[in-house]
Amino acid sequence: MTETQETKGGSPSRRALIGWGGAGLALGAAAAGGAMAMAEVGNDVDPAAADMGGAVEFHGAHQAGIATPVQDRLHFAAFDVKTDDRAEFVQMLKDWTEAARRMTAGRPVGEGAYGGLAEAPPDDTGEALGLKPSRLTLTIGFGPSLFDKFGLHGRRPAALADLPAFPGDNLDRARTGGDLCVQACADDPQVAVHAIRNLARIGFGKVAVRWSQLGFGKTSSTTPGAQTPRNLFGFKDGTRNIAGTESDRLKKHVWVGDGDGGDGDAWMTGGSYLVARRIRMNIETWDRTPLQEQEDIFGRDKGEGAPVGKAKEHDKPFLKAMKPDAHVRLAHPDSNGGITILRRGYSFTDGTDGLGRLDAGLFFLAYQRDVREGFIPLQRRLSAHDALNEYIQHVGSAVFAVPPGVRDSGDWWGRALFSKEA
Amino acid sequence: MTETQETKGGSPSRRALIGWGGAGLALGAAAAGGAMAMAEVGNDVDPAAADMGGAVEFHGAHQAGIATPVQDRLHFAAFDVKTDDRAEFVQMLKDWTEAARRMTAGRPVGEGAYGGLAEAPPDDTGEALGLKPSRLTLTIGFGPSLFDKFGLHGRRPAALADLPAFPGDNLDRARTGGDLCVQACADDPQVAVHAIRNLARIGFGKVAVRWSQLGFGKTSSTTPGAQTPRNLFGFKDGTRNIAGTESDRLKKHVWVGDGDGGDGDAWMTGGSYLVARRIRMNIETWDRTPLQEQEDIFGRDKGEGAPVGKAKEHDKPFLKAMKPDAHVRLAHPDSNGGITILRRGYSFTDGTDGLGRLDAGLFFLAYQRDVREGFIPLQRRLSAHDALNEYIQHVGSAVFAVPPGVRDSGDWWGRALFSKEA
Repeated sequence: MTETQETKGGSPSRRALIGWGGAGLALGAAAAGGAMAMAEVGNDVDPAAADMGGAVEFHGAHQAGIATPVQDRLHFAAFDVKTDDRAEFVQMLKDWTEAARRMTAGRPVGEGAYGGLAEAPPDDTGEALGLKPSRLTLTIGFGPSLFDKFGLHGRRPAALADLPAFPGDNLDRARTGGDLCVQACADDPQVAVHAIRNLARIGFGKVAVRWSQLGFGKTSSTTPGAQTPRNLFGFKDGTRNIAGTESDRLKKHVWVGDGDGGDGDAWMTGGSYLVARRIRMNIETWDRTPLQEQEDIFGRDKGEGAPVGKAKEHDKPFLKAMKPDAHVRLAHPDSNGGITILRRGYSFTDGTDGLGRLDAGLFFLAYQRDVREGFIPLQRRLSAHDALNEYIQHVGSAVFAVPPGVRDSGDWWGRALFSKEA
Repeated sequence: MTETQETKGGSPSRRALIGWGGAGLALGAAAAGGAMAMAEVGNDVDPAAADMGGAVEFHGAHQAGIATPVQDRLHFAAFDVKTDDRAEFVQMLKDWTEAARRMTAGRPVGEGAYGGLAEAPPDDTGEALGLKPSRLTLTIGFGPSLFDKFGLHGRRPAALADLPAFPGDNLDRARTGGDLCVQACADDPQVAVHAIRNLARIGFGKVAVRWSQLGFGKTSSTTPGAQTPRNLFGFKDGTRNIAGTESDRLKKHVWVGDGDGGDGDAWMTGGSYLVARRIRMNIETWDRTPLQEQEDIFGRDKGEGAPVGKAKEHDKPFLKAMKPDAHVRLAHPDSNGGITILRRGYSFTDGTDGLGRLDAGLFFLAYQRDVREGFIPLQRRLSAHDALNEYIQHVGSAVFAVPPGVRDSGDWWGRALFSKEA
């Protein structure tokens, strides 16, 4: 198994299952192969844009959806546990795993699909029938509150630290926390929504959706050399993000290692820790800010995305040329003793806020090896000093332990956690 | 000018403007041409899926975004007027028209873009820089309440009828009505969101967003012979929808004709009337309904979408084989004295409802020649009898007069309404 999850061009598509196969699928596979080859030599073609059809391998040492090149769309859901029956919860995790295995391969949930019993509800809700796998990945995480349940008290990793209250936080309880999460990413939003909906359906009575978030514009590039997508402030941010092919940086900053944590944490080896923050952007205020001020705040020019005084986006920034409170200067690893996280955020627009303003912003998702050495010190610094704080507000927050990948067809999400007690 | 708006493959792209032109753009144009050619001979390739890059012509006898093949994503916004200064409002309509002309061609708002003054806010918010035109269309509509303002009392067309209260309506005032609307459709959601945001920014102080809606999965096909996309119940609905190339049905059922309406309505010739309804789907209940019952309710099979007793989606339905309250039977023109509307709806998922259920459904958009002869009689029948009513609820509603197209570079949205008094 390689460090990153590979795209499988030849996997079955939902379309093929209902008899629509042929040219469209072959085209998708060819496009996928071509795009991946270009990405490997540092071309700025974005595989996510070029490959709308392929399937991403579900099994591996790590869960897909972390080092996988960022897909175009997100549906993220946090769940609360509603059962106190451990066996029932474990069975749900097994059922979820099997459904995830099928959906990520472009297959409907359940063997029956529409050949099943007419007097029973369909195994699959159907709205993704005929759609391609769309590089769907499903990534599960366990929140701190899960470890208060099912006799898991001794198994909570120390690296799954509660986040402190940061200056400027204005967290909505209804968009914060959760016992479990599932991150669904795909190039087609209907495929991502279908996946979360079917997991919620399978979990009915055992778990309930606590909050969810759709994201439509990826804001980070996880492809080396690619142009970084723009956030809703119109800027490129996260240019130095870790790409999926950088196994050294992934190993150092993202994947939990063998010797990490305490005695009871071995179940997390190969996993990671996820911080999710819903960051509202005051875009109406931003849009009335002069261009020079916008560029000073970020420490980049707006058109090209180059650091202050440089010509190109990927030119190495000269941090001292930026204002002391510039976002890039404060967030850069060189200003933070090397702190590096893997960002995988999405823009969101959730209608209006009742005051005539768009409820829009960044749904920030970051993976790291240890929350205490990643997001927490970085956000302490940014929340205290970042010039951008005048235009943003953190309104939702959660942290999850993301277990290692499902190894094979007999494995399931959370097996290492639930099978062996500390 | 042809009856439908044409896709222009060779128009400038946002990408080209910042120096990224070349192979990607040429590929997009070739794909667009190929897909359009196939659509014309009835192939089931969907131009919206194949052509992610092209620009749709803004000028024409009719506004684009009605007969235009449905794009993948929607951002719809209703605005309230905040000024009582007619000249100021007219200037805003002119400014909006110029911005719409530029954005639909893939160009940023304003000539300055990022060569402008550093001490001024940028003319364009920037998040669509580097993105393709993505078949963006912007379509304006005027709500009944606009005609109470600016001395327009005598100009309200009779065909812009207020909708009655239908059985089962549960309308949220915050998602209902509006003096103006803009429908932004594009194959890239960031392009659609960028367009609405920039219009809202230009309108600051003159209008404010009353409500808005994002849609992600188109639910209607306006391409002849294409497979109809599935709604969130997993069914194909709207198989007999009017396609953009059917000029006879468009003329009869969608476009306002010369002799329509009263003396003061001539300004609407070439326009249409839009009904928007936010329809919440109780998908958790639906998902627990047996397959046979789901199929009886729609009057179609779920896998293929064929009418009861038929083999293929596009086979002519035998309505009497369906249950009397089946959705297809009730909505079919043969049951309604020929009532035909052009549907252009999108699925939505707006997070959760606070009760652990997805806030998901159908944002229904329908264009017609006269609301009194289109949506109103159709919905009277459906709201009273449709078996689907157990699973849906109309929670938002609005109606708009959609004026004819902007003819040329000197024309602007609403000119005929504002230039000549009745």
